[in-house]
Amino acid sequence: MANLKTLLSTLDTLEFQDMYGEDFFLTWENTYDEIIATFTVADILRALREQNISSRIFDSGLGVSLFRDNSTRTRFSFASACNLLGLAVQDLDEGKSQIAHGETVRETANMISFMADVIGIRDDMYIGKGNAYMREVSRALKEGFEDGNLEQRPNLVNLQCDIDHPTQAMADMNHIIHSLGGVEAVRGKKIAMTWAYSPSYGKPLSVPQGIIGLMSRFGMDVVLAHPEGYEIMPEVEEVAHKQAFTSGGSFTKTNSMAEAFADADFVYPKSWAPFKAMERRTELYGEGDSAGIKALETELLAQNANFKDWECTEELMATTREGKALYMHCLPADISGVSCPQGEVAASVFDRYRVPLYKEASHKPYIIAAMIFLSKIADPRAKFEELITAGAPRFSR
Amino acid sequence: MANLKTLLSTLDTLEFQDMYGEDFFLTWENTYDEIIATFTVADILRALREQNISSRIFDSGLGVSLFRDNSTRTRFSFASACNLLGLAVQDLDEGKSQIAHGETVRETANMISFMADVIGIRDDMYIGKGNAYMREVSRALKEGFEDGNLEQRPNLVNLQCDIDHPTQAMADMNHIIHSLGGVEAVRGKKIAMTWAYSPSYGKPLSVPQGIIGLMSRFGMDVVLAHPEGYEIMPEVEEVAHKQAFTSGGSFTKTNSMAEAFADADFVYPKSWAPFKAMERRTELYGEGDSAGIKALETELLAQNANFKDWECTEELMATTREGKALYMHCLPADISGVSCPQGEVAASVFDRYRVPLYKEASHKPYIIAAMIFLSKIADPRAKFEELITAGAPRFSR
Amino acid sequence: MANLKTLLSTLDTLEFQDMYGEDFFLTWENTYDEIIATFTVADILRALREQNISSRIFDSGLGVSLFRDNSTRTRFSFASACNLLGLAVQDLDEGKSQIAHGETVRETANMISFMADVIGIRDDMYIGKGNAYMREVSRALKEGFEDGNLEQRPNLVNLQCDIDHPTQAMADMNHIIHSLGGVEAVRGKKIAMTWAYSPSYGKPLSVPQGIIGLMSRFGMDVVLAHPEGYEIMPEVEEVAHKQAFTSGGSFTKTNSMAEAFADADFVYPKSWAPFKAMERRTELYGEGDSAGIKALETELLAQNANFKDWECTEELMATTREGKALYMHCLPADISGVSCPQGEVAASVFDRYRVPLYKEASHKPYIIAAMIFLSKIADPRAKFEELITAGAPRFSR
Repeated sequence: MANLKTLLSTLDTLEFQDMYGEDFFLTWENTYDEIIATFTVADILRALREQNISSRIFDSGLGVSLFRDNSTRTRFSFASACNLLGLAVQDLDEGKSQIAHGETVRETANMISFMADVIGIRDDMYIGKGNAYMREVSRALKEGFEDGNLEQRPNLVNLQCDIDHPTQAMADMNHIIHSLGGVEAVRGKKIAMTWAYSPSYGKPLSVPQGIIGLMSRFGMDVVLAHPEGYEIMPEVEEVAHKQAFTSGGSFTKTNSMAEAFADADFVYPKSWAPFKAMERRTELYGEGDSAGIKALETELLAQNANFKDWECTEELMATTREGKALYMHCLPADISGVSCPQGEVAASVFDRYRVPLYKEASHKPYIIAAMIFLSKIADPRAKFEELITAGAPRFSR
Repeated sequence: MANLKTLLSTLDTLEFQDMYGEDFFLTWENTYDEIIATFTVADILRALREQNISSRIFDSGLGVSLFRDNSTRTRFSFASACNLLGLAVQDLDEGKSQIAHGETVRETANMISFMADVIGIRDDMYIGKGNAYMREVSRALKEGFEDGNLEQRPNLVNLQCDIDHPTQAMADMNHIIHSLGGVEAVRGKKIAMTWAYSPSYGKPLSVPQGIIGLMSRFGMDVVLAHPEGYEIMPEVEEVAHKQAFTSGGSFTKTNSMAEAFADADFVYPKSWAPFKAMERRTELYGEGDSAGIKALETELLAQNANFKDWECTEELMATTREGKALYMHCLPADISGVSCPQGEVAASVFDRYRVPLYKEASHKPYIIAAMIFLSKIADPRAKFEELITAGAPRFSR
Repeated sequence: MANLKTLLSTLDTLEFQDMYGEDFFLTWENTYDEIIATFTVADILRALREQNISSRIFDSGLGVSLFRDNSTRTRFSFASACNLLGLAVQDLDEGKSQIAHGETVRETANMISFMADVIGIRDDMYIGKGNAYMREVSRALKEGFEDGNLEQRPNLVNLQCDIDHPTQAMADMNHIIHSLGGVEAVRGKKIAMTWAYSPSYGKPLSVPQGIIGLMSRFGMDVVLAHPEGYEIMPEVEEVAHKQAFTSGGSFTKTNSMAEAFADADFVYPKSWAPFKAMERRTELYGEGDSAGIKALETELLAQNANFKDWECTEELMATTREGKALYMHCLPADISGVSCPQGEVAASVFDRYRVPLYKEASHKPYIIAAMIFLSKIADPRAKFEELITAGAPRFSR
């Protein structure tokens, strides 16, 4: 309970009232206090579960998952978060190809929301589309509620878009904080967000963008490393620059993996597709040009193959701070000799970090639950006190 | 609470005890009082939700959805209704082609029902099959319960069959009642259920049939309009005739959209397939004659194209009562210039009525929940008093 | 309540503490007391439901279903069991072809389990794989819990593997016990587990193996009958032999259906594929040899066709004890002249036993729930007293 008390006191020191009733789109649209509040609420929810105290705030209600992509992990994370708070999940599969707009979005958003409390959306495939789609749904829901069609306004959680992957980046950051024993210790630490070779193509940009867009707020030295040609969205780099300046950290770029790894405290080697290529792919899909898409795929795979030496090896790990940087990944990773002949990371490195990697992932359901909690509960501190006092067991063993 | 009290008092004036333990197949098999009781219970459940009072009557239990057709809206409506009452949903996908009979129906009905409290069935594709299938399932469940295989007899809700679409028609009627401020004001009002052009083919007959089969009970002047060749099931017209006579309203038919719209208070322009064509299609499917099915489709699309002027335009709307008839639709509509080049309704008309259209749709989950409630609860009035006194919050904010 | 009291007293006489915190893999890995405890808990859960007493022990929590095969019945049984105890179900579809190993199994097991309390696995298609896969998942979950990645260790329920089908065999055995009025009466009864002809191919071996592996523990005369060439796993026959000896019953084999039926008290005629053929099929799948798979299928269907006289006819039934043996089947059965021209059982036999067959099936959700309950609750007797005293209604009617 000691830990719980500390966490609850932390809430008192933070300003996060504006999260109430709002959606969660991009981490950098939220204040630093709001980000810390989300970590804190996530940790409280986890502590409650560890102590078998129910954090069920919904007696009934629906969490709607709207995924353009079939993702087991994200689906389970969202379902777990909803379940923890008492919501049943209904999946809405829109299909990969169909990008709804205007009338259709407005109508669908209303039709699925008569009893929905939360909607989680994952839409990361097309540059310029995913986040825009979420905003469109959000507007429709606001309207639907104001018009009296919906009994409640469902809040949105961005489960991954073309710009950011807030639930992933925040689970990762909470993992860093826990590994250091507190957010104060993060200042001055170096994190290397680096591209790594993968034999597959078209991995989303939202992970590196989410990482630099969040980690740059904590006074860290954030290094983004990738081969020439693997640029990410310039707008997000801009965000990282500004935030690093404000937070007293730094944001630098390099085309050398070795440079990024040197003396790093945290390394995040992961493949992604070049931003410009993803833009082209989005256009090609828009035009229904399947020959063009095929050609682009071939081109990108060939381009990747030029950078097979971008692998997180034991040699590189040895160059990090005392040779003991924390290896991070959003999973699943391309492990050399295990999941592919050559990939993002050497098998021995991955193997050594398996337990921390699973722990990293374990934060995600709680982060999602925290986002829902903060959007739904006007006074989280009071609500937690209420839940603790009630002490209803989650599992009546 | 004032509204809640009035609604509860209304229940006292109605006879609806026979709904307890029964299935809901066709609106016209239920008495007028039973229909009004369903509206009233739906409104009570909605009021409870608005006031954040839990209407959860099941601590655990399953609602099984059995859809021959993949329908997002119906699925969400049913899931919402189940969730509101505390039931988890399990989907049973039987597939479109396979029409189970006899042994198989009996066995499946039992196998899915050991812990099922409700089964919602949507089976509208084949004339003469959907409703018959529901009755078969119902008989099997009754037997299974009497034989002691099932701990409880699950009740059936018809979520759309070849004959009626009771949850839609009742949501529509409740929308009409709300728009007029009470059921007394419905008497003497004119509703035009008219065919409208659509570039797609084979839309179900259950909507127009459901509308004339229900609205003819309220003393309304019900006009059914369609081009020659778009006849609906004669048995349902017969029902509408008799009910209109009994209720002091009227049921007339015309081949002129203009005549139907003239001075109408409510207009419901919507495409459907000719009854005889649907019968032929059912036979062709039975014979597995895919060439015949293809030929029929071509023929029907060509037939539709002869009636492109059957569109709900501003000009037609202007001819309705004071030019202000309430435009209705079960959604999604074929909107000219939006979802198709030319369709059922002009974009400006649709746009003007969007908010009422969404409100119309919003009644459906509550209608379904009311049907379940009335089949499960012996004394609804007492149960509601109990829920209100308990005052457990649906969402403990 | 009388019955409930007797059942609770029975629990006091049994040793089953070792089931707490454990998985359920194979019936013969559990002691006789543990098997009886499972039947008893299943019956208690059923009695509670009949008396409308909630047996919900989870306020929130997930039951994960991991099926390599799409099975409506198993899915509904598992979902019903989870729902009865308060768990929401999340399905993980791994697909039929993909057999995950090592890294992937370990990772997936952790990723789906952050909030999972139970995982039900059905993996019966490949000889030597299904049960091994479950053990691999189990090890990963144990590790994940010990490493602190998982807040709780989810317990596994074997919903059918290549070796055993414990939930089916135990539902069947409980059906036998109920039909005789108690487990004491089972001793000395004869059960014929016999192969029967089916026009389909490759039916799993887990049913006959599960039956002889379980029924041989109760002092029964267990006869396994099949045509030459339809041998089952020798290891399981070995288990049956030893258990029959210990329990004072017998386990014999014959190639004559008539011999098996003679004076039998229970008959279980059901098709299965030869063990050696299933081994070959597993290898062919491993090699991706689709021509070989096709050839094997043709060969097996031809082999089956040699034994069309292995049918459960009225004539055979007449030779059983007083002509009144209880006909059993896991369903669905191949019924001659109903589901196929010629199959496992004559229509009149099946029809006469329909009610007992559905009752047989009705035990399964309760058996699954009992397995979960015993793995989760340290003191089941005390927990039941608590639930009965609380007397919360499952359905607040």
